[in-house]
Amino acid sequence: MRPSGRAPDEMRVITIEPNFTRHAEGSVLIGFGDTKVLVTASIEEKVPPFLRGKGEGWVTAEYGMLPRATHTRGSREAAKGKQSGRTQEIQRLIGRSLRAITDLKALGERQIVIDCDVIQADGGTRTASISGAWVALRMAVDKLMADGKLTADPIRQKVAAISCGIYNGTPVLDLDYPEDSNAEADANFVLTGDGKLAEVQATAEGATFDEEELLRLLRLARIGCSQIFAAQDKATGR
Amino acid sequence: MRPSGRAPDEMRVITIEPNFTRHAEGSVLIGFGDTKVLVTASIEEKVPPFLRGKGEGWVTAEYGMLPRATHTRGSREAAKGKQSGRTQEIQRLIGRSLRAITDLKALGERQIVIDCDVIQADGGTRTASISGAWVALRMAVDKLMADGKLTADPIRQKVAAISCGIYNGTPVLDLDYPEDSNAEADANFVLTGDGKLAEVQATAEGATFDEEELLRLLRLARIGCSQIFAAQDKATGR
Amino acid sequence: MRPSGRAPDEMRVITIEPNFTRHAEGSVLIGFGDTKVLVTASIEEKVPPFLRGKGEGWVTAEYGMLPRATHTRGSREAAKGKQSGRTQEIQRLIGRSLRAITDLKALGERQIVIDCDVIQADGGTRTASISGAWVALRMAVDKLMADGKLTADPIRQKVAAISCGIYNGTPVLDLDYPEDSNAEADANFVLTGDGKLAEVQATAEGATFDEEELLRLLRLARIGCSQIFAAQDKATGR
Amino acid sequence: MRPSGRAPDEMRVITIEPNFTRHAEGSVLIGFGDTKVLVTASIEEKVPPFLRGKGEGWVTAEYGMLPRATHTRGSREAAKGKQSGRTQEIQRLIGRSLRAITDLKALGERQIVIDCDVIQADGGTRTASISGAWVALRMAVDKLMADGKLTADPIRQKVAAISCGIYNGTPVLDLDYPEDSNAEADANFVLTGDGKLAEVQATAEGATFDEEELLRLLRLARIGCSQIFAAQDKATGR
Amino acid sequence: MRPSGRAPDEMRVITIEPNFTRHAEGSVLIGFGDTKVLVTASIEEKVPPFLRGKGEGWVTAEYGMLPRATHTRGSREAAKGKQSGRTQEIQRLIGRSLRAITDLKALGERQIVIDCDVIQADGGTRTASISGAWVALRMAVDKLMADGKLTADPIRQKVAAISCGIYNGTPVLDLDYPEDSNAEADANFVLTGDGKLAEVQATAEGATFDEEELLRLLRLARIGCSQIFAAQDKATGR
Amino acid sequence: MRPSGRAPDEMRVITIEPNFTRHAEGSVLIGFGDTKVLVTASIEEKVPPFLRGKGEGWVTAEYGMLPRATHTRGSREAAKGKQSGRTQEIQRLIGRSLRAITDLKALGERQIVIDCDVIQADGGTRTASISGAWVALRMAVDKLMADGKLTADPIRQKVAAISCGIYNGTPVLDLDYPEDSNAEADANFVLTGDGKLAEVQATAEGATFDEEELLRLLRLARIGCSQIFAAQDKATGR
Repeated sequence: MRPSGRAPDEMRVITIEPNFTRHAEGSVLIGFGDTKVLVTASIEEKVPPFLRGKGEGWVTAEYGMLPRATHTRGSREAAKGKQSGRTQEIQRLIGRSLRAITDLKALGERQIVIDCDVIQADGGTRTASISGAWVALRMAVDKLMADGKLTADPIRQKVAAISCGIYNGTPVLDLDYPEDSNAEADANFVLTGDGKLAEVQATAEGATFDEEELLRLLRLARIGCSQIFAAQDKATGR
Repeated sequence: MRPSGRAPDEMRVITIEPNFTRHAEGSVLIGFGDTKVLVTASIEEKVPPFLRGKGEGWVTAEYGMLPRATHTRGSREAAKGKQSGRTQEIQRLIGRSLRAITDLKALGERQIVIDCDVIQADGGTRTASISGAWVALRMAVDKLMADGKLTADPIRQKVAAISCGIYNGTPVLDLDYPEDSNAEADANFVLTGDGKLAEVQATAEGATFDEEELLRLLRLARIGCSQIFAAQDKATGR
Repeated sequence: MRPSGRAPDEMRVITIEPNFTRHAEGSVLIGFGDTKVLVTASIEEKVPPFLRGKGEGWVTAEYGMLPRATHTRGSREAAKGKQSGRTQEIQRLIGRSLRAITDLKALGERQIVIDCDVIQADGGTRTASISGAWVALRMAVDKLMADGKLTADPIRQKVAAISCGIYNGTPVLDLDYPEDSNAEADANFVLTGDGKLAEVQATAEGATFDEEELLRLLRLARIGCSQIFAAQDKATGR
Repeated sequence: MRPSGRAPDEMRVITIEPNFTRHAEGSVLIGFGDTKVLVTASIEEKVPPFLRGKGEGWVTAEYGMLPRATHTRGSREAAKGKQSGRTQEIQRLIGRSLRAITDLKALGERQIVIDCDVIQADGGTRTASISGAWVALRMAVDKLMADGKLTADPIRQKVAAISCGIYNGTPVLDLDYPEDSNAEADANFVLTGDGKLAEVQATAEGATFDEEELLRLLRLARIGCSQIFAAQDKATGR
Repeated sequence: MRPSGRAPDEMRVITIEPNFTRHAEGSVLIGFGDTKVLVTASIEEKVPPFLRGKGEGWVTAEYGMLPRATHTRGSREAAKGKQSGRTQEIQRLIGRSLRAITDLKALGERQIVIDCDVIQADGGTRTASISGAWVALRMAVDKLMADGKLTADPIRQKVAAISCGIYNGTPVLDLDYPEDSNAEADANFVLTGDGKLAEVQATAEGATFDEEELLRLLRLARIGCSQIFAAQDKATGR
Repeated sequence: MRPSGRAPDEMRVITIEPNFTRHAEGSVLIGFGDTKVLVTASIEEKVPPFLRGKGEGWVTAEYGMLPRATHTRGSREAAKGKQSGRTQEIQRLIGRSLRAITDLKALGERQIVIDCDVIQADGGTRTASISGAWVALRMAVDKLMADGKLTADPIRQKVAAISCGIYNGTPVLDLDYPEDSNAEADANFVLTGDGKLAEVQATAEGATFDEEELLRLLRLARIGCSQIFAAQDKATGR
């Protein structure tokens, strides 16, 4: 029995509120149950040094957690003067996931910076971030196309992410915090709209796992992502 | 004529949404027009080193601005590895303003940490932060009292803050971003519920100002704060 | 009764020793009683990035306190690897105060950097810094004019600063350390030679204050600044 | 055809030189072809703060790359003043992989710190690090047992890691640098001696991948790890 | 011919002004010609962690250069967030030099912190710092003895330092800035009152040097230090 | 009697293994007994900002100690976020020593960066670093000459370094760790192939020393360096 009473293959309620803030070219508040992440996409007409003059664009991401997004207050990374290893790992994952479905040449020599700030945390903040980031990116690219700055669409696929894990011996979908902190193994899958994989990260926490379990987690992830894709479609009116 | 069409002594719409997040002991989303700040109050049963064993409590604050809260994206302080001088100045001001109306002895040997994170910025983020922080602090103290951890109320007064400035030669109340960036002088006033001053910060931007102008700005601030006090009362159900 | 035996409206002895060091374009050791600050003005024929190519100059300031300027040794900020919030707040205030009386266009595309280093502290280090900084700035600008690099004088006014506070219920002028650490409220006023205000910072420490008290503090500040202006005139031979 | 001429399921030569340095409780120079990593295990009779007094041990890892381990010199992280996100990601992975096969309770209240320093890099530094770290850990634990400080062996399994990837459309084992920098997808697998998985990290680089490809990569990883396990046995004389 | 017209074995004027500031237990402004260093000694009734409970004391030093002590303004180390290698090298040298003549056991479990802040630089700041530091240390120890906290004098010898160098082929004493920046070799000698050496640091700048030259520089250093010892005696009234 | 049983003027075994790693233009593993340092020389076709456009080259060095090079594990400087004062002092010394024998004009507008990483420490790491660095530099320059990028040899001399000290009252050559940590005085000498001095650093540790002792240490250093020069010749095949 899951703490939340959900079935093993049952997602939490997915909410996607576009245009949550007004300045960013793309902005969305995404919720996976009580996990709430504010994601913005900012267009910058410049690229990082290593890409200058190559006629190619870049998509990158930064991630942060508000100090009291969690049950007990964590320290503010800006005050500590450094981002934790966990933060850096997550923001690198978000960036890679979006670049996996973006044609950087078609984007032209500009950069889209995704900011994922966790307002409230209850497990799955990185997967909610990726899933919301796709919507924000979509909105920013739509704006570039509407403004005539792009003619071809550089976004090749949808992308979404979900966590799964083995909890009390049972593979379950979309771990919330009580599950996440007690799972024997957990995995994050980043899937694309055509059923391909962009990223798999599976980790033994208390017990190692076998190939069959990995595949069962992947099957759950496919169920979850299909629901996220639907929510993304609805949010972007497609 | 103000860019927003407001009268010189007209505030923007004040919105206070309590319990915006669920983990913090106090939590509020405060809006002064398009400026939106998420404020949380976290109770910690410990005090900073300089107060240990003195039977006295502490109230402190941290402030941050999400990178794309602004018109163009600013850099993330956690990624840069340091908080700007402006950020530190603001968080020190918020902390002082709250301590000015708190009986730290009555609070007992515990700390309340206020986090003010600007979701969207349109001028006046520090004054919205202080005004919202009082509500979050009130909620956290109410919780301590409901839990029987405090018998006497350590909050002596309400406190609110508002910016005023001289814009195109006219003193105006509650500067928004277009006014703030062009004002000849601007001032932040922190007032208490009994009409006293906790803090005055007035600064010449393009032109110095005189005593009479300072007093006219203070009069506007009194108008603004009376409306904020009313909104605080409504939000806390008093 | 003040600890020093001074009357409520009595300043400490003001000393201004020009040319205290020899390399800087302007250099002064200013004393407000036992508070001693070494201030230098350095001319740099370049401007910060945000001003490049705009034909406009800049005046900025840095502030530091020698570790043993105080009663007990404080830690060295260079060794700790960061400037405190207090330091940053003060150096921002010094810079703003000087820019308030400088015509930056008339200064041309160059920068004057003011360094204020507290040799000995006994309260009022930021106001002594501002008051001394004006003399160092004046000397540096005089040098630019003597060298034919400037024809029009970019300094529009004198500027001086003084602290006042409510000590034992009485408004007093020019707080020394014993007063500063026990005042109910304290305020720093930055005034210009024509009687205008460049900056007002008033803070409740142990008790909030009212409008009438603010005005009494301002009246004391006018008395103090008139004496500082006289000392500045004498030091610059005007 | 692979640049090295290897067959798709062919590992590079694995070399493990125990006792490469003399001070550490465990020390090994591991080579996967031209990739050379010096791994040491240091026993510390203390645990991190979060474990104090819980009667449980800890295994953690740090990772570094000598500046000229690579084709062109990279900057020294100690001189830059921070570890890159990549470095932190790798050292977190190494630590998790070792903890996955260690009974931390049986280790007792002490810590084993693994240092992985890349002397020469040619792809696969993180998997060589994990594979070598197991040997160093084994040596350090053997020392604890020989010294009578441990009676039961806290190491439950062997652990090894290998990278695989899709290169020119073909799944290949043990990517070297020319392959790694051009692979369409790459994956790192951490396997235990009993055939279980401790960690899977698969990433789309130029193209997304499907479930079948993931499984083929895993099958290659099993081939590679069986050879690493043999080399570990030989190095530890088991 | 030296730029200053001095003879090869001629020191600049040595000035030592004790009690330059009032809070420190020892304080001195030392001048070697235009080089001026403010040195303070602060007594702290605690020792660094590695000495706790050993009944032994410590003498340590910190060094800083005011940004405009030099001909052109240097950046402020506190603002840059780190001390340069040169700064750290110098402060380590000062500390070692003082510990070389102090009986740390006789000092008891307390620390004396020396702060050397260069007000004006014209070559030789580190040697002036050491020479002045001895006076400040002497004053602080005298205070401990006068207060009855020490019965035996922990200072075993005087210590002084001077730079020498080979300038235009000629060994010269007490390099000023124009010489220092053009010397073929320079050396800093730290000598004790009984003619022993505490530290020798000789460096080839443009040309290597030979043993005979090293000895000639040392002979010059003896001449210089005897004059510094005399000035120290005069300053401390011995 | 020395702990190692060596005679006072007896060096430890010197080993120099060229081409220890394959990417660097020069690479050597140098051993002074149990002290082992990996030194690489990297050619960069650019110079530091202060030399740009001057037609002159630069030689610089960085130094690091692997955390478990020592008897007990030290903290990793990259993880702490800063290099210690000792590290900076050593890397500055290595750079100066190499520049003392290099004709920077003849090197042309390029930089050679020396990395010295201590694999195992047993005293004398800085002198082994300098001695090995010369070989790595020689190899890199030979490569530049072989590639036709240099016609004249910019290396004017060999350079080597050795530590000496007074241990139990006796001057001894090439201190190992047990001697180094108990010596009354220690000195590092950097000598050139023609018998000149590039650097002398002599420090009193427990007792000051006199001129005669300094000269005896220098005589020992000459013995040691002649053996290092021979080993350098052998390693470079000259």
